[in-house]
Amino acid sequence: MEQLEINILGCGSATPTTKHFLSSQVVNLCEKLYMIDCGEGTQLRFRAQKLSFSRLNHIFLSHLHGDHCLGLPGLISTLGLLGRTTDLHIYAQSEAEAVFRPLLDYFCRENSYQVIFHAFDPVKHALIFEDHSLKVSTIPLKHGVPSAGFLFEEQPKSAHILREMIDFYQIPLSQINAIKNGADFITLEGKTIQNKLLTRPADPPKKYAYCSDTAYSEKIIPWIEGIDVLYHEATFSDRDIARAKETNHSSARQAALIAKAAQVKKLVIGHFSARYPDESILLQEAQAIFPATVLAAEGMRLKV
Amino acid sequence: MEQLEINILGCGSATPTTKHFLSSQVVNLCEKLYMIDCGEGTQLRFRAQKLSFSRLNHIFLSHLHGDHCLGLPGLISTLGLLGRTTDLHIYAQSEAEAVFRPLLDYFCRENSYQVIFHAFDPVKHALIFEDHSLKVSTIPLKHGVPSAGFLFEEQPKSAHILREMIDFYQIPLSQINAIKNGADFITLEGKTIQNKLLTRPADPPKKYAYCSDTAYSEKIIPWIEGIDVLYHEATFSDRDIARAKETNHSSARQAALIAKAAQVKKLVIGHFSARYPDESILLQEAQAIFPATVLAAEGMRLKV
Repeated sequence: MEQLEINILGCGSATPTTKHFLSSQVVNLCEKLYMIDCGEGTQLRFRAQKLSFSRLNHIFLSHLHGDHCLGLPGLISTLGLLGRTTDLHIYAQSEAEAVFRPLLDYFCRENSYQVIFHAFDPVKHALIFEDHSLKVSTIPLKHGVPSAGFLFEEQPKSAHILREMIDFYQIPLSQINAIKNGADFITLEGKTIQNKLLTRPADPPKKYAYCSDTAYSEKIIPWIEGIDVLYHEATFSDRDIARAKETNHSSARQAALIAKAAQVKKLVIGHFSARYPDESILLQEAQAIFPATVLAAEGMRLKV
Repeated sequence: MEQLEINILGCGSATPTTKHFLSSQVVNLCEKLYMIDCGEGTQLRFRAQKLSFSRLNHIFLSHLHGDHCLGLPGLISTLGLLGRTTDLHIYAQSEAEAVFRPLLDYFCRENSYQVIFHAFDPVKHALIFEDHSLKVSTIPLKHGVPSAGFLFEEQPKSAHILREMIDFYQIPLSQINAIKNGADFITLEGKTIQNKLLTRPADPPKKYAYCSDTAYSEKIIPWIEGIDVLYHEATFSDRDIARAKETNHSSARQAALIAKAAQVKKLVIGHFSARYPDESILLQEAQAIFPATVLAAEGMRLKV
């Protein structure tokens, strides 16, 4: 998986139903898996989607409501039973460790790997994770409890070297990486060939944001401006806007307004309330404002 | 549901798979639901089997391994979100409350009902629950950690009154209950009609036992002698008996030996290891010793 891909494991809200599992997604980049949220049943969906437990090393928790994190103890237990030895990193608010540690100490005491909690402050936008291919930062959201979304950004990529120029100038293999990273090429005759003649620009880094749970909040717009894909919660239809406000959730229309204002390329709505047997009303409501909207669904794989 | 019925919600072991959910069952009597064990995903299966959350007031936990109880926080959270106000009673070893309470205090702090833990000693056979229709007692098992099975026994029932005798003696409605409970009937002429002429004996109380997790243990036989249905774990095939011993589990053959020695009427085997894609080898192994054996399965409803 060279390309950033999102796997939706669950996109229901509050309680699991026969239609939807609870919130969880996996961001897949270069066959490393980064999980966002972990509602009850996440490990089941993870397995059903044939994802590899051994490629999962990082879990990001948006907030500490049960429907977003009560699958964590079971998942951690299962990883232990599978013989895992690699550390598992969990990025969450500071309370998470205090809340989960006693349970893990009891049920996972025979695990042969460590669970390491990394605390972040959900009210601040900050870089909380970085490796050679990806960086993750928080997006402060507006919810009844502290809640943070996550912005996943690919690291800047190298330029593409032009195959025909390699052949034409007989560029040795040893210099390819330098040229991809911007170097000019000097021929045996001492002539300088400018980098721009040898390459075409790198693909822009792909960007994905997960914003759930949140009420309508224009404050998030600067952080998600122009990104490729935005997952924004749309728990309710706008006809239930009073209920949305009361519970600090968004309507599908509000999700679309955010996507439009931020000029994102694609919107995925999810975190559906069980009150809508036919979610096409949510889709229509969002598409009326932001046509490039799709409904999340369990099993969905989305190339960013 | 006048008759005792068992609903199998999950009968896998250790980790959930695409084939099996984790351990959980519901004993249904007179439309009251008594849950045994609560692995992750239990609330999903409960809903899928169209059982009513409002009829569930009692949960019995056999032992504190994650695959038997990590569905508890999510279930308790869901009951809260559904607006429950009735107390929920949990029967478990004393450690259970210490382990789960911090998580419940955090995630379920807005619940409008109480969760009440009732501690029992898993190494003793004792009556731990009783109401007008049912009694539940513990069956000490042999496992790596303290583990108890449960014996569910219907309370003794009233005799059946003979319809034709009511008509013949014109027995008034007011005396029916007394006669069902053993009283004779005195006619208007002062003649005593003996109870045995008016009734046929009550059905014997049905008995069901859940024995999981456990290694082979003949000590449990006296408690389950002659019962109607025995659910006994059969995690392994006898060809993996070394692994069964090492992990304090039973083979299908061992489950059948217990059923045979206890002269139970029917054996249900479950808690299957994921290593057997075809569980018919477990069934054949058990049936060779105890023919009245069936394989547990998610969704199974079994009249006792």
